[in-house]
Amino acid sequence: MYLYLYRCMKSDIISGNLRAGEKLPSKRRLAENLSVSVITVENAYACLLAEGYLYSVEKSGYYVSAIETVPLLKKRFSDYTLPQNTPMAVDMRGGQTDTGSFPVSQWCRLTRKIMTERSEDFFRPCGMSGTRELRAAIADYLRRNKSIDVSPDCIVIGAGTEYLCYTVTRLLGRDKLYGMENPGYRKVSTVYESSGAACVYLPLDGKGLSMAAVRESTADVLHISPNHHFPTGRVTTAARRYELLAWAAEQEGRYIVEDDYDSEFRFDGHPLGSLFSDDKNGRVIYMNTFSKTISPSLRIGYLVLPPELMELYVKKSADFSCTVSTSEQLTLAEFISGGYYETYIGRMKKAYGIRRERFFQMIAESGLSEKLKIQEESAGLHFILALTTPLSDLQIKEKASENGIGLAFLSDCLVGNGDAFAHSLLVNYSNTEEAAFGAVLDFLYDIL
Amino acid sequence: MYLYLYRCMKSDIISGNLRAGEKLPSKRRLAENLSVSVITVENAYACLLAEGYLYSVEKSGYYVSAIETVPLLKKRFSDYTLPQNTPMAVDMRGGQTDTGSFPVSQWCRLTRKIMTERSEDFFRPCGMSGTRELRAAIADYLRRNKSIDVSPDCIVIGAGTEYLCYTVTRLLGRDKLYGMENPGYRKVSTVYESSGAACVYLPLDGKGLSMAAVRESTADVLHISPNHHFPTGRVTTAARRYELLAWAAEQEGRYIVEDDYDSEFRFDGHPLGSLFSDDKNGRVIYMNTFSKTISPSLRIGYLVLPPELMELYVKKSADFSCTVSTSEQLTLAEFISGGYYETYIGRMKKAYGIRRERFFQMIAESGLSEKLKIQEESAGLHFILALTTPLSDLQIKEKASENGIGLAFLSDCLVGNGDAFAHSLLVNYSNTEEAAFGAVLDFLYDIL
Repeated sequence: MYLYLYRCMKSDIISGNLRAGEKLPSKRRLAENLSVSVITVENAYACLLAEGYLYSVEKSGYYVSAIETVPLLKKRFSDYTLPQNTPMAVDMRGGQTDTGSFPVSQWCRLTRKIMTERSEDFFRPCGMSGTRELRAAIADYLRRNKSIDVSPDCIVIGAGTEYLCYTVTRLLGRDKLYGMENPGYRKVSTVYESSGAACVYLPLDGKGLSMAAVRESTADVLHISPNHHFPTGRVTTAARRYELLAWAAEQEGRYIVEDDYDSEFRFDGHPLGSLFSDDKNGRVIYMNTFSKTISPSLRIGYLVLPPELMELYVKKSADFSCTVSTSEQLTLAEFISGGYYETYIGRMKKAYGIRRERFFQMIAESGLSEKLKIQEESAGLHFILALTTPLSDLQIKEKASENGIGLAFLSDCLVGNGDAFAHSLLVNYSNTEEAAFGAVLDFLYDIL
Repeated sequence: MYLYLYRCMKSDIISGNLRAGEKLPSKRRLAENLSVSVITVENAYACLLAEGYLYSVEKSGYYVSAIETVPLLKKRFSDYTLPQNTPMAVDMRGGQTDTGSFPVSQWCRLTRKIMTERSEDFFRPCGMSGTRELRAAIADYLRRNKSIDVSPDCIVIGAGTEYLCYTVTRLLGRDKLYGMENPGYRKVSTVYESSGAACVYLPLDGKGLSMAAVRESTADVLHISPNHHFPTGRVTTAARRYELLAWAAEQEGRYIVEDDYDSEFRFDGHPLGSLFSDDKNGRVIYMNTFSKTISPSLRIGYLVLPPELMELYVKKSADFSCTVSTSEQLTLAEFISGGYYETYIGRMKKAYGIRRERFFQMIAESGLSEKLKIQEESAGLHFILALTTPLSDLQIKEKASENGIGLAFLSDCLVGNGDAFAHSLLVNYSNTEEAAFGAVLDFLYDIL
């Protein structure tokens, strides 16, 4: 009731029906007139007073304030709907993972356990770097799997790759020049650029990022994926790794961000060593997420910082909080330290391997063996299919889109021109089912 | 076994014991020499080949690659520990909330429900703005409680205030001049500045942010808390609200970020109206989080954008993902739409109100009534205690720190000099227990 009265009076003041300086009736009088209780009028007057629509004069009463309102455009935001893109029937463009066999019940059980046994920690602030528990679990995981031997105090938790790249620019400075792989994962350079950092695009040669290009560019920081380059799948050779480390060590302020986004899924033998573990000068920042191994909907990633940078991070981040909620960090920590994470990766590696072989077989049986050539390193969750065709990548994508098929090409990962990279279709088999890939092959058969 | 062999050979290559160009024994031969299986040698050679420590020459065998290693500083990162601040016995500086009576079991039940009934949505990517479910629940909440009537498509979910401020600079541009309240919540301006945006510090007068200062500053964007200024508690008057809205509407590219961080906790009557709901020109961005109402450890906040800005956001954010995990968004959505959130706010409002009254009573009984004066508006989770003392704020803080007590003053929220704001102690009663406040009063008794 008092809110209704408050709204009516507010609207009368804004519209000018109640004029500036006008004296209002006393509370008792208005209550009698409206047949409401005095308390109702009192509450309404109190709201209007607090917001300054009224002012009171001692021993006299309540008066209407002078308020200059803005001419109204009368926009209504309540019916607003964003324009939507129509989804494709088959879409090979995203970075989704296959989560069909994720141990959901295991995860739920751990969440429940955390919530009941550690409910007081549930709302405990975890500091700018994340919970001790998750950092310790990740440190152990890295020691077991990546030959990275660091203390939990070298690890910073953050909400996914984009946030971590922003953290890197905050840490190393926006005045630095950031070298990006070209072709490369364009989302990463977009994030650096929208953080206000200048980017330079560097070509690759057979051994990895071209050292000549790095030196010519005057880049200060390199963001690279030496263990499985996206999208070509190339692995940076040992010689080039040491050349990169030597470049970084040569001059103050040079750093390398090692983006190890999917090296867990190597199909022959053990995951590769990391640039971080070969670096002894504190010039490499290791970055990884759980987007590829679990799902991009779990927004958790991490940086491993050399101690010197960690101290700089702490200094620069006093006013920042960790972007991942404590409860999810504790659940993931138990998921890793209980061994469920590595078991799940093993299972998915097998499943993705089977699907990859099945895709190769489907290509062999497609009647297109003359026109399709598989290019791949035995790592990662995608391969490249080289097409023999006079059509441009853009023409193929447009035709595919008309058929409800979303395709991504290596040329989409390129800044600037590069005919050498044309006709290379990206097949991400972590997010593509067998039937969907069949539809893609049927489409290719028709246009090739 | 093969990993051990791989590591030994890698270390021999790096150290130069195996020289560049040297031919290695055949797999069979080495296996015999080492008394291991040929497969072990094969796996080790394969790793060294993939990483480029070896190269193979057809019909000849395996050779050691030429690798220039970097001089080692031999830093060990595995024992590294960050220097820690010693925690205070009593700390009134943080922004923690009292979560002792949060309905943890209710929250767990909802999480469990989401995980079992909607396990397929659990890993569904939710798009750059967050899940439809949470945005819809927030839109309903805003309609019921803040007179904000927007569609879910006007809402963007993000991981806390810092991330949302970064999003604002990304949206409106880093080339804009951002006007900050002075005194004000310094974390906010730190975040803007570390996003690369220039900030200007604007004084307040009795009605809110000084319009003269705003106009003189040539600021393009204002970040303000009109419903409860931090730390003075002032509520911006209606007249000043319309002056601010008129200022924003006057010129293209002017915007106001309304930071409504704790207006839920008003102690007389209904929460105040919002600047967003009074704006009809699409120049206000509403920002709020669940840090004060639930806990800062739950990293969820949101922006309400006018449609024009929403479309700009979508255009600029194609390469960004929402920073909050889907499962937590779905749980919070159910928590709000099931009514638990508003029930909890009501309960906490009562509990905080009782504690506040108790603190007032403790001050009255402290024997310091001559030297302590309570200054407060009936809103928010803190009040200001004006001290009569010849000591400076810094001297008091140092003495307090020696006694294991962490204090925050209004002068800590100030950029530049401002003697008018001296001797104003901030009492945040959401994170201070009765006993702790008693210790603070004992300390004040001793020094005053």
